[in-house]
Amino acid sequence: MFELHPQLQKDCLTIGDFPLSRLLLSNDSHYPWFILVPRRAGVTEVFELAQEDQQQLQRESLHLSRVIYEVFNADKLNVAALGNMVSQLHVHHIVRYRDDIAWPAPVWGKFPAAPYSSAAIATLLEPLRGVLAEGFSFAEIAS
Amino acid sequence: MFELHPQLQKDCLTIGDFPLSRLLLSNDSHYPWFILVPRRAGVTEVFELAQEDQQQLQRESLHLSRVIYEVFNADKLNVAALGNMVSQLHVHHIVRYRDDIAWPAPVWGKFPAAPYSSAAIATLLEPLRGVLAEGFSFAEIAS
Repeated sequence: MFELHPQLQKDCLTIGDFPLSRLLLSNDSHYPWFILVPRRAGVTEVFELAQEDQQQLQRESLHLSRVIYEVFNADKLNVAALGNMVSQLHVHHIVRYRDDIAWPAPVWGKFPAAPYSSAAIATLLEPLRGVLAEGFSFAEIAS
Repeated sequence: MFELHPQLQKDCLTIGDFPLSRLLLSNDSHYPWFILVPRRAGVTEVFELAQEDQQQLQRESLHLSRVIYEVFNADKLNVAALGNMVSQLHVHHIVRYRDDIAWPAPVWGKFPAAPYSSAAIATLLEPLRGVLAEGFSFAEIAS
């Protein structure tokens, strides 16, 4: 049975569920940083998913990428499945700006996370409401 | 017309072509580090590819992932499209070991690249010959 890894639970806020993946927001206000976690137990690498799940993960990743690129007017996206620390398969989708604190370096391990205030989370997520579900199945989870 | 970005040309060795992507080896002997570059001009994000190219890129990425995971007996793969420095779309596929020099950190910007000797490249690539083309279209390029 799928259970979100405790480290992801600790570092992230749950936003909702696509058909395959849980959508998280990394609680680091330095960057709009989203994470997809396929709700499948015991999977570490993308190629370990069933073929239809691989395809669904790609659809969800591309949908999320388009949405956050536009909504947050990104200069660049960083999309990555690393998993050196948390082996549960999760795919980072990070909105990068040429003037963000870590640019042009990757974000991992660069600066300590700066947690959001409740107000800042609401402001960040507001323009995503609706758009995430446009042409896509998406169920919000109140966290 | 597609041309490999000069920085990738400088930092990598060309191994061959899948139907969509050029396969490069990063010239850094710290890690078996492969890069797929879709041979399409002017593309920076995966979602900018045509839909059939998106699907082909995923097929090539999964095939490469499986092959290098097995051949190099990986502890973990790091698969990432970053592009903060080189905007031409390229997808890193890095074999990670729990005792590699950067573990568990991501590899980028961690240590200066340690170029391969010709002999070391030949040794590294030898077990890939044939396997990369198993059930897949792959044309080696002598570099």
